[in-house]
Amino acid sequence: MQKGALLYEGKAKQLFATNDPDIVYVQYKNSATAFNGEKKEEIAGKAELNNQITSILFNRLADKGIPSHFVEELSPTEQLVRKVAIIPLEVVVRNIAAGSLANRLGFDEGVKLEKPLVEFYYKDDALGDPLLTDAHIALLKLATEEEKQTIEHLALEINTHLQEIFYEIGVILVDFKLEFGRTTNGEILLADEISPDTCRLWDKETNQKLDKDVFRRNLGNLTDGYAIILSRLGGSSQ
Amino acid sequence: MQKGALLYEGKAKQLFATNDPDIVYVQYKNSATAFNGEKKEEIAGKAELNNQITSILFNRLADKGIPSHFVEELSPTEQLVRKVAIIPLEVVVRNIAAGSLANRLGFDEGVKLEKPLVEFYYKDDALGDPLLTDAHIALLKLATEEEKQTIEHLALEINTHLQEIFYEIGVILVDFKLEFGRTTNGEILLADEISPDTCRLWDKETNQKLDKDVFRRNLGNLTDGYAIILSRLGGSSQ
Repeated sequence: MQKGALLYEGKAKQLFATNDPDIVYVQYKNSATAFNGEKKEEIAGKAELNNQITSILFNRLADKGIPSHFVEELSPTEQLVRKVAIIPLEVVVRNIAAGSLANRLGFDEGVKLEKPLVEFYYKDDALGDPLLTDAHIALLKLATEEEKQTIEHLALEINTHLQEIFYEIGVILVDFKLEFGRTTNGEILLADEISPDTCRLWDKETNQKLDKDVFRRNLGNLTDGYAIILSRLGGSSQ
Repeated sequence: MQKGALLYEGKAKQLFATNDPDIVYVQYKNSATAFNGEKKEEIAGKAELNNQITSILFNRLADKGIPSHFVEELSPTEQLVRKVAIIPLEVVVRNIAAGSLANRLGFDEGVKLEKPLVEFYYKDDALGDPLLTDAHIALLKLATEEEKQTIEHLALEINTHLQEIFYEIGVILVDFKLEFGRTTNGEILLADEISPDTCRLWDKETNQKLDKDVFRRNLGNLTDGYAIILSRLGGSSQ
């Protein structure tokens, strides 16, 4: 598979064309960003950690029947994925109150929710990724009602599997963000990444934060936590 | 009906007990506030205008079968209402993009929506009245699913009637905010007020703003527009 022209550069990844029009080459970056890009730093080793963690998790989810764009890990920082049109929704699943749920609605951080909460945000940096209701999604025509239901159902199923995967390695899955894409024939696939950049992960025994909140809140060396996650998932960092 | 102890003081009204435990005495205030109370001014004549406009509109809605807390107008600045427990939801209905819909989701102000949009906000000054999804309303137990549906249905019905009432007097109903309350036997009643404080109202011919945006944006004398609304509705300001 040949790496072609740069198709898209996001905050954490570059996407390149390949000689197969349905396959895209993903290069993970060392950039860490937070607060809609206001805080930004290069962190050596982050690309390897996120690419490898995402590859392990997407493989585990595929085993559970979750359809995703993931094809294969190519190298420590690269993977191949199926080409999809990303649906501009950031789909957040929460098991425990933290982050914007605590800040916006007054929940104490750490309070367990009665049942998992699914939220949709408009993936639009210029607008600051605002929260959307179902009526907004319809008004903005971001997804059909059927697609929205498929996505919500998949997000909850993924939550069940991820909670189990993390629980087994002594980690609590507090919340996480997913993105989905449409293939040319309209199939909805899990896309983007699942890593400590996109999840809140707390050590079950010590409550140590093993995710990007370490960067957001200047709590220490970001990649220490990421390396713990990768190693407990059975991967090895360089 | 005797005016008793002060029960509650809000930004725009005081509520007093009466000798009937099911009836509350409402005294409208001249205060104008915006941006969650950050901007505040006393504006002579505002109490009269809002009390009278609300009384006319609640009477017109009652004629259409909308159940509300309104009992009767007592004086230019006072009315009697049924006592309800206010449901802490600010219910916003939008026909045309303006205000936070334009700012948050990038709509151009003035764009007509394909169909009326209903939004729910958490009535909580300390949190800045954040937008809520259906899942948040359930999580916070602010209303049952059945109550939420009743409220949404009533809000859309009220929108139809208000659009007609305003259209007849040459005014476009851009959007408005409603509050609802529960009686002791669980009935849902329209409560609070409907006035240029809680609606965006634009003159059909000139597009002149006849509502609180005049105060929010320092566009001139606030009560001029309110007096136009009252007079076109058939009331007379002092």
